[in-house]
Amino acid sequence: MAGSTFGTLFRVSNFGESHGPAIGCVVDGCPPGMPLTVKDIQTQLDRRRPGTSRHVTQRQEADQVEILSGVFEGVTTGTPIGLLIRNTDARSKDYASIADSFRPGHADYTYWHKFGVRDPRGGGRSSARLTAPTVAAGAIARKWLALRYGTVIRAYMSQLGPIRIPFLSWDFVEQNPFYAPNADVIPELEDYMDALRRDGDSIGARIEVVAEQIPAGLGEPIYDRLDADIAYAMMGLNAVKGVSIGAGFESIDQRGSEHGDEITPEGFLSNHAGGILGGISSGQPITVSLAIKPTSSIRVERRSVNRAGEPAVVQTLGRHDPCVGIRAAPIAEALLALVLADHALLHRGQCGEREDA
Amino acid sequence: MAGSTFGTLFRVSNFGESHGPAIGCVVDGCPPGMPLTVKDIQTQLDRRRPGTSRHVTQRQEADQVEILSGVFEGVTTGTPIGLLIRNTDARSKDYASIADSFRPGHADYTYWHKFGVRDPRGGGRSSARLTAPTVAAGAIARKWLALRYGTVIRAYMSQLGPIRIPFLSWDFVEQNPFYAPNADVIPELEDYMDALRRDGDSIGARIEVVAEQIPAGLGEPIYDRLDADIAYAMMGLNAVKGVSIGAGFESIDQRGSEHGDEITPEGFLSNHAGGILGGISSGQPITVSLAIKPTSSIRVERRSVNRAGEPAVVQTLGRHDPCVGIRAAPIAEALLALVLADHALLHRGQCGEREDA
Amino acid sequence: MAGSTFGTLFRVSNFGESHGPAIGCVVDGCPPGMPLTVKDIQTQLDRRRPGTSRHVTQRQEADQVEILSGVFEGVTTGTPIGLLIRNTDARSKDYASIADSFRPGHADYTYWHKFGVRDPRGGGRSSARLTAPTVAAGAIARKWLALRYGTVIRAYMSQLGPIRIPFLSWDFVEQNPFYAPNADVIPELEDYMDALRRDGDSIGARIEVVAEQIPAGLGEPIYDRLDADIAYAMMGLNAVKGVSIGAGFESIDQRGSEHGDEITPEGFLSNHAGGILGGISSGQPITVSLAIKPTSSIRVERRSVNRAGEPAVVQTLGRHDPCVGIRAAPIAEALLALVLADHALLHRGQCGEREDA
Amino acid sequence: MAGSTFGTLFRVSNFGESHGPAIGCVVDGCPPGMPLTVKDIQTQLDRRRPGTSRHVTQRQEADQVEILSGVFEGVTTGTPIGLLIRNTDARSKDYASIADSFRPGHADYTYWHKFGVRDPRGGGRSSARLTAPTVAAGAIARKWLALRYGTVIRAYMSQLGPIRIPFLSWDFVEQNPFYAPNADVIPELEDYMDALRRDGDSIGARIEVVAEQIPAGLGEPIYDRLDADIAYAMMGLNAVKGVSIGAGFESIDQRGSEHGDEITPEGFLSNHAGGILGGISSGQPITVSLAIKPTSSIRVERRSVNRAGEPAVVQTLGRHDPCVGIRAAPIAEALLALVLADHALLHRGQCGEREDA
Repeated sequence: MAGSTFGTLFRVSNFGESHGPAIGCVVDGCPPGMPLTVKDIQTQLDRRRPGTSRHVTQRQEADQVEILSGVFEGVTTGTPIGLLIRNTDARSKDYASIADSFRPGHADYTYWHKFGVRDPRGGGRSSARLTAPTVAAGAIARKWLALRYGTVIRAYMSQLGPIRIPFLSWDFVEQNPFYAPNADVIPELEDYMDALRRDGDSIGARIEVVAEQIPAGLGEPIYDRLDADIAYAMMGLNAVKGVSIGAGFESIDQRGSEHGDEITPEGFLSNHAGGILGGISSGQPITVSLAIKPTSSIRVERRSVNRAGEPAVVQTLGRHDPCVGIRAAPIAEALLALVLADHALLHRGQCGEREDA
Repeated sequence: MAGSTFGTLFRVSNFGESHGPAIGCVVDGCPPGMPLTVKDIQTQLDRRRPGTSRHVTQRQEADQVEILSGVFEGVTTGTPIGLLIRNTDARSKDYASIADSFRPGHADYTYWHKFGVRDPRGGGRSSARLTAPTVAAGAIARKWLALRYGTVIRAYMSQLGPIRIPFLSWDFVEQNPFYAPNADVIPELEDYMDALRRDGDSIGARIEVVAEQIPAGLGEPIYDRLDADIAYAMMGLNAVKGVSIGAGFESIDQRGSEHGDEITPEGFLSNHAGGILGGISSGQPITVSLAIKPTSSIRVERRSVNRAGEPAVVQTLGRHDPCVGIRAAPIAEALLALVLADHALLHRGQCGEREDA
Repeated sequence: MAGSTFGTLFRVSNFGESHGPAIGCVVDGCPPGMPLTVKDIQTQLDRRRPGTSRHVTQRQEADQVEILSGVFEGVTTGTPIGLLIRNTDARSKDYASIADSFRPGHADYTYWHKFGVRDPRGGGRSSARLTAPTVAAGAIARKWLALRYGTVIRAYMSQLGPIRIPFLSWDFVEQNPFYAPNADVIPELEDYMDALRRDGDSIGARIEVVAEQIPAGLGEPIYDRLDADIAYAMMGLNAVKGVSIGAGFESIDQRGSEHGDEITPEGFLSNHAGGILGGISSGQPITVSLAIKPTSSIRVERRSVNRAGEPAVVQTLGRHDPCVGIRAAPIAEALLALVLADHALLHRGQCGEREDA
Repeated sequence: MAGSTFGTLFRVSNFGESHGPAIGCVVDGCPPGMPLTVKDIQTQLDRRRPGTSRHVTQRQEADQVEILSGVFEGVTTGTPIGLLIRNTDARSKDYASIADSFRPGHADYTYWHKFGVRDPRGGGRSSARLTAPTVAAGAIARKWLALRYGTVIRAYMSQLGPIRIPFLSWDFVEQNPFYAPNADVIPELEDYMDALRRDGDSIGARIEVVAEQIPAGLGEPIYDRLDADIAYAMMGLNAVKGVSIGAGFESIDQRGSEHGDEITPEGFLSNHAGGILGGISSGQPITVSLAIKPTSSIRVERRSVNRAGEPAVVQTLGRHDPCVGIRAAPIAEALLALVLADHALLHRGQCGEREDA
């Protein structure tokens, strides 16, 4: 299928470029009768908005969303919800210099080879700015999940470059620009980012996403397993190079007698599975971990080529996130919400809803 | 969509249970005019076949595939290719004991909660046996890719439990039951597996998959990026708990000036991207890494519950792989081939084929 | 998507050629827990089976179906149901004569231009024989609909060539080889067919399909309306050239004050809508009408060309239906059942199930 | 799938309600490198715009389209094209009277039963106004087809209620408000419509759609045949109750020796097939015929019920088309363009492009 649609029954169709007139999406399949306001969506958009701290891009975007359809008298009608976000602070001239050459590690190169034409302004379609419509759509999905199942979806940063961030409490997460679950480490993170910015370089990060209160039974093996679709969603997020669920890569040297989560009448005794067994949700919390690479738009000079294939030295000015991981938490939450809402509807469609699920 | 279909233009619909009459699939969308014989498919099936060494399940299955349609006078016609594999060595009685209770870490539990009914024989639909049709379909995809682009897709085991396996040469990979790229480590692997089998336990593993000679431009951002679909395919493989591309989780503490692969007129100077930038293939080798968990069907006794929710002690007899990772290489190759073939057709559909791609 | 898949949640993937080893399909998405036996399916297959009267093709096919998966202890498990039908009475030599030239009005010509290769034996993939898997899949859909909603789906022939067949009673339909709802007209139909056969020619027909006991609310406007998907299904049936719903083409000269079905607390007073308003089922019977063209495989000599584009005279021997409409009733019923089952699951997924629906 | 997406590779996702803030769509999959301006789209929108003659609804809508994405420096980039049309002349108060009861023959009734909530203003989502985004998307598809294959797609009215309109010339079609291919009949049509309007009633119509210069080989049997998808598209158009291709319902009493189009080295000698054989385009003109019912929004009083199921008398004021068929021509053309563009891309994906196709 044309690649900009996400989901089957709870479906998002995304459009827009970083410096075009607007970005947005069509959210189709949201169940009818759900109260929905602009505020429900804006709250989530504001969490990923640029320019909110010195550690992220200084581009100033209000990211004001407009609901164009699908809501009547404050309630969803079951028809498509059109969402529109105007681009306001685009400084396209910043990109003139790189319009002709390819940033190492950037989609410049592949878009050019795929389409033979590209919008270089702000990365065009490949910009992380296009995660805004995803977050807006995810806000609708998470509200439906919360009302229907009491689902809670949260994410935090567990590592920034070399700095590991021990989990202390969810309470801290929304109180610092890093989505760190630990106040003590903030000064270290800030010093690291300040130095990085001076170097004109960028760094990677690790994000943990957790969904609680998920009914058992979501997932359509094989092939459309819940874990497969989560991996699809997360790996599709800009800069993500790795996705794991539950024990993830630590499963490699675990024995079956250690990894398999034992069950008692009171419930599971551990969660190495990350809430998914055989591609289907078990009812335990779903735990996902993301590896995010450093951004490729840096001031450091790199060797590259231009469209003619001639040597070029590339240095990216413009405004960029030195660590896209810093703003990734709300986006990862939104993606997980979209996958879960879609699978909840798929499951209800095929199996109806079981008391024990 | 009902969950057993994989791909959009190069599409596989999988059916079957471990101990039912047969397993198989329908491969729809394979381009017409390609020479295809049973041998092309059987060769790949034989690579994942059980019972070929003492380190895997002792179930004896010939896994003989029959082509039911889509091929006329040795050439594909562009119509669906029906593939059938009869189950021959099913010992269902082995499973009577666990039909009523749930193996910790196994899909027993979630299938029961999803469907309210399940075929417990050999894990039924959740059995790794259902990867056979995937391998058969993948054999068709890889042949088309090889003929069309000269694509070569290979995989090897880089870690078995605690034992890391340094890459020496592809030459060794097909010469040992572990798909290890290193002959020196074989004795250690065999001793480890023998001891594990005596303990009645299981272990995880890590698999590396590499695809070479891929045209630049495959992938449909956003959302249907090539890396997203690879993650979907790999995470959907039984027992996989983690997927990474290129530098993967090592990207976390890399700087942009280190991670971004520089380009010269002669080509890229490194491949941290794993052959994919912005969700689109760059023409470099695509490198994927999988974390495979230990199987849950072990002789070690575990605590669990039965359908009534009462405490139960579960011990799995029957015949099982103590390390499903051992047979995962050909399956991972097949999945990557299916994703690449599908994206090659999608790209050709939207963009035609460019000289420079 | 590759074209051989039908439906979204209740999905059928069809494979096979007229003279290949076998034909069949994978039915994915059938809800779990439904009793299902071979007899449920065979009963429907027998209704469309060839060779049952002198008025249809004399090819003798038992059309014995085998259930390969998805059913355990007589009950559906919610996993894909693999269905297999072996071809037994293939006389490929009959087709040698036309392998090189194109039958006027036949898919020979277009398959050749699309794929550049084709299986000419019995029409290969384009043969009406491929409706057998559709009927088998439809048998599963109709059983689910009957158990879930009490749905009854029936079809009859309302016109054979120039002979209009007034509807008298459903009781007659299964008692004659024409699916005619009127015993008095049988002799006339038989005489007509006997004369036609002597001429070596073929004729068209009109089929009416009616589904009763359909819940209101099925259909996903816009675009995936129930009427749109019914039209897709019916026009996709071999030889169908026209599809109408309710008043159909008679709506053209109706006034709104005549066409619009008035409603009283006791229900609708007419059914010009054919049970569908705005693309959504109203709860009234769904009525569909099909125009079926005469088959192109006739003994009468016709002008055509061969692969080289040179003039050729084509005369089709082999065994053919002089009126495919005669066997179309059970196929049209199956297609309607598949569309309705799919939309019932889609509706349950998005909206849950409403008491008043 | 959520129902508001149309097409696979050339895909449209539609949103909006008649009296909401805006309507529009996302067009995903348009090949890159095609020149595209607002004018290309506006020209087609203006052809279906309301208020252009006394014979259609007097609602005044500029239907000004804005391109939000997917076009850079006047050329498509291969990324989604977001299209936005603001609603400007909404008089919602007109509908207060019918918010609680159901118009006979209208989607009011079924939307209510499906969703349990609806936007009654101007018919909300079920309004023919939602064909505007389809026309806008179709304008992009038809431009691509024209540039790529020289395809020409046109439609005309062949019958208005009881008045048959003999085809004289395409030249007349764009010169009268009825899209009639015959100037002589215009006075009769105008008198008929004036009388009808005085009666406060509505009437049906018949539309013929023709696509010329279509490559042979488009269509994916079975099931996604070109004729099946055309039927899906056309039956999904508001008020359409019947669709036929080529000889359509006249095929019923044709003999095979009459219906089958003979072929000579110079081409086909007739076109009863309507350009499609076995679900695949033959290269001949594709001819489609539509039966359009009279609108249900009329001033004539009708019997109905309200939400409580109590008897009600319904009379629709507001502004409505007494014959939606009058404005259907450009919409039907757009739908055919969308189906053809999608199948052209699907065919190119699976088969590449053949010289002889």
